[in-house]
Amino acid sequence: MAKQKKPRRPSAQTPKGFRDYFGAEVTERKTMLDKIAQVYELHGFAPLESSAVETVEALGKFLPDVDRPNEGVFAWQEGGETDGDWLALRYDLTAPLARVYAQHRNDLPTPYRRYAMGPVWRNEKPGPGRFRQFYQCDADTVGTASVAADAEMCAMLADALEAVGIERGDYVVRINNRKVLNGVMEVAGIPEDDHNARGIVLRAIDKLDRLGLDGVRALLGSGRKDESGDFTEGADLKSEQIRVVLEFINAEQIVQNRLDIVSKQLTGNATETDILRHARTNYAELVGGGTIGDKKAFNALVLEHLRELVGASNVGLEGVSELQQISNLLEAQGYEADRIVIDPSVVRGLGYYTGPVYEAELTFEIKDEKGRPRQFGSVAGGGRYDDLVTRFTGQQVPATGVSIGVDRLLAALQAKGRLDAQPEGPVIVTVMDRDRMADYMEICADLRKAGIAAEVYLGNPKNFGNQLKYADKRRARFAIIQGSDEAARDVVQVKDLVKGAKLAEQASLEEWKENPSQFEVPRAGLVARLKPFFR
Amino acid sequence: MAKQKKPRRPSAQTPKGFRDYFGAEVTERKTMLDKIAQVYELHGFAPLESSAVETVEALGKFLPDVDRPNEGVFAWQEGGETDGDWLALRYDLTAPLARVYAQHRNDLPTPYRRYAMGPVWRNEKPGPGRFRQFYQCDADTVGTASVAADAEMCAMLADALEAVGIERGDYVVRINNRKVLNGVMEVAGIPEDDHNARGIVLRAIDKLDRLGLDGVRALLGSGRKDESGDFTEGADLKSEQIRVVLEFINAEQIVQNRLDIVSKQLTGNATETDILRHARTNYAELVGGGTIGDKKAFNALVLEHLRELVGASNVGLEGVSELQQISNLLEAQGYEADRIVIDPSVVRGLGYYTGPVYEAELTFEIKDEKGRPRQFGSVAGGGRYDDLVTRFTGQQVPATGVSIGVDRLLAALQAKGRLDAQPEGPVIVTVMDRDRMADYMEICADLRKAGIAAEVYLGNPKNFGNQLKYADKRRARFAIIQGSDEAARDVVQVKDLVKGAKLAEQASLEEWKENPSQFEVPRAGLVARLKPFFR
Repeated sequence: MAKQKKPRRPSAQTPKGFRDYFGAEVTERKTMLDKIAQVYELHGFAPLESSAVETVEALGKFLPDVDRPNEGVFAWQEGGETDGDWLALRYDLTAPLARVYAQHRNDLPTPYRRYAMGPVWRNEKPGPGRFRQFYQCDADTVGTASVAADAEMCAMLADALEAVGIERGDYVVRINNRKVLNGVMEVAGIPEDDHNARGIVLRAIDKLDRLGLDGVRALLGSGRKDESGDFTEGADLKSEQIRVVLEFINAEQIVQNRLDIVSKQLTGNATETDILRHARTNYAELVGGGTIGDKKAFNALVLEHLRELVGASNVGLEGVSELQQISNLLEAQGYEADRIVIDPSVVRGLGYYTGPVYEAELTFEIKDEKGRPRQFGSVAGGGRYDDLVTRFTGQQVPATGVSIGVDRLLAALQAKGRLDAQPEGPVIVTVMDRDRMADYMEICADLRKAGIAAEVYLGNPKNFGNQLKYADKRRARFAIIQGSDEAARDVVQVKDLVKGAKLAEQASLEEWKENPSQFEVPRAGLVARLKPFFR
Repeated sequence: MAKQKKPRRPSAQTPKGFRDYFGAEVTERKTMLDKIAQVYELHGFAPLESSAVETVEALGKFLPDVDRPNEGVFAWQEGGETDGDWLALRYDLTAPLARVYAQHRNDLPTPYRRYAMGPVWRNEKPGPGRFRQFYQCDADTVGTASVAADAEMCAMLADALEAVGIERGDYVVRINNRKVLNGVMEVAGIPEDDHNARGIVLRAIDKLDRLGLDGVRALLGSGRKDESGDFTEGADLKSEQIRVVLEFINAEQIVQNRLDIVSKQLTGNATETDILRHARTNYAELVGGGTIGDKKAFNALVLEHLRELVGASNVGLEGVSELQQISNLLEAQGYEADRIVIDPSVVRGLGYYTGPVYEAELTFEIKDEKGRPRQFGSVAGGGRYDDLVTRFTGQQVPATGVSIGVDRLLAALQAKGRLDAQPEGPVIVTVMDRDRMADYMEICADLRKAGIAAEVYLGNPKNFGNQLKYADKRRARFAIIQGSDEAARDVVQVKDLVKGAKLAEQASLEEWKENPSQFEVPRAGLVARLKPFFR
């Protein structure tokens, strides 16, 4: 008989870059997604849950004749055979939407409005806070070229943010249009087929937030050296070309400055700094005073500026006109410049988008890891893309869609204190007498019938301290105690653990006596006594 | 230059054995799972969402030194390297729970009550109705040997079924105990180390539903030939051994028969058939009459019978005593024999379980694929297992848990008409005049503010028939129409599509006139007019 190998104990670890979510982490995300889903459904969007596994061919990141898919996805070969189909976990919710729409297009309504929420997987190097499985939350309208669909996305995004608890004033949805960007490139004389230069320009604009105007100017010109000394190649534009691009991405500020000058004339007793600060942070109030016009003026002025800028480009003018329509449609529904602004610096990545692009930004400040205040930044974005199913069917199907960054938005709600800090645990019925388990379970059953979560302590009851420690760990508000004495008198003791903890921290002896954290109630009156504490 | 390959169009198909879920399919499942989660939380269970991807080593179905994991799971090697870790998609929610508990046991409360809901993946040959990705819905209590935890699982299962819409009387939770089974084997003289014989006995009992007593008898003896002529090896027990096992699994019927005789004596004017039928289908009523005792009698009588049967086996008596405790605890909370019965024929598969096992069965009839009536059968089950984390830590941690068959339960709700047949789609605001899109969107915004889902038709509005077809496809109750005439008079037309369809099917001309399916309302009164139709 061959000598048996001694079995090694397996390691109890999630794979690198994966994690588990416990209790409140699950409920908080679920509560947030449920609220968003409700907003999506109010707008006529229907849920879609596609399979987590797709053929690599359908996902479309890879050529079917490549031997081994690249590192971006988790992929394997059917049946472990070298001639089996390659399968992979979806890396986003858009690629599956393309496959679903191409597969079911004859049964689906046109336009097809769908939302999807669920995990996606990326086979990337994990880092701090960067996981290889995370949630996405998307809504897309497929099969319509109407910019009304884009306007709807922006409105829905604003509604969704307010629904989850981001207050008006704490966010802004910024809209741009790729066609305007292309028009600017045309006017600046950067040829359509100079993909290198156009790519550098797009990437530079995308970095405006981080690098500021000077950084972008360097990237549009001869290039930029960062603090670490690394050099990034520039687009090598001439100074006149650079001016056009900068006037474009800086349109909002230019308009703002013009307004500030006007407002300075009108309110002669304020310093320029005062007015600028006031104008920048509280534009709506400034222009709402009836002097310049109404809130609608701001977006209209930005559009006017853009129209001047791209006047020589047809595609540019088309883009401005689309932005104008979107702006009008939004205003008709009450979404004005305090929530939705035209912002030419919005790019949303490369290649992909073909028309309007949009981005939701949270405008309140949080502290960064070094304690410095910074704006929270983008939590959602999207835009129009017209090549959704072309690779499957050969036909162009226009679509527009938005994706909410689930983890980012959760972090924002956390930062704003909009998540219940620690939801309360169940009422814990302690076990004083092992033989009276049936009585304890009956108490629980009564509480549950009244909608109060409750459980009997089911660990070893010998050490009563452990029972109370367990109740603390579960964040229970109340522990119920019934020993033989209480049972004989048909009463129970209720220990208010939250109050007890507070008193223990700060109370004087008198307060302890006046505010007992433990009280006695008749068994029959327990539910009525506790009910008011639970919603 | 090398000749370029002509790119082949990818096929827009889910991989074999996978599917997509659309609209109501998603919401119906979600609604059901939300209700179950609510019941679990009332019982003090906290949600856990573990990662979908585990190391093959932690999943534990395979030896770490096997070159290629078997076909049961979807697995791949990290980084596509031959020396990378093997990763796999979870095939159930229990294996991840074991890993989670072993990994986080120092931070988790003891006992740890958790529930989990989510997809799992099986790399099996797909068949009709058999998918390689499906939902599971589990609750487990880890770290307590108390049978109160098992009692709680059974009570919670009953509550969950009622919460989703299965009425009392339409289900029964059956409980058994592996220890009683082992006691019966001991009494029957089947040695503990005769794994082959014990395995055949377990499998035979598990098939009672399908094969009946005669089929089980054959499998306990020399074996059984099925209709197709295939022969299944038997356990080769002697007739006395077979009698013991059959008296065990038939305990419920034996007790029932005894009761029937009693009840016949008491109600002399009924025929035996009458009483038997009455007793079997409506036991609670029969024994509730005060003659035999109360509802509690039935389970007590079954337990008495089992106690007689395993009297010579310590483990058997321990098992009966545990069942007795569970039964008492459940009765104290109001769960009696009309909902929860001791049933010795419940086995729940092989090896795994070490104590109480339980199963929820739906008792109403449905038609099978050939139109014959049959009982719906099992929708959930579970039991106690004590080896949850032994392979990770070397320590035995007792646990008990239940798993609800999500797709089976959904099918049951469908069969009982408990799912909204087809939830209503959004109100569709049609487009009569492309230039007045802002007005149409404003109508939608107003409806949404009142909680009514609404959308503007965003397809090509040229053909009005297509707009109404779209509204039908979306199952909209109402279409809103406002042409230039209506706009001038500040009214809208409301078309009731449901009523319209009904009238079109069956109404006379008079009815058409009296019950117009289209009516006019002032624009300002639209929301108030439609509101009563929505919840």
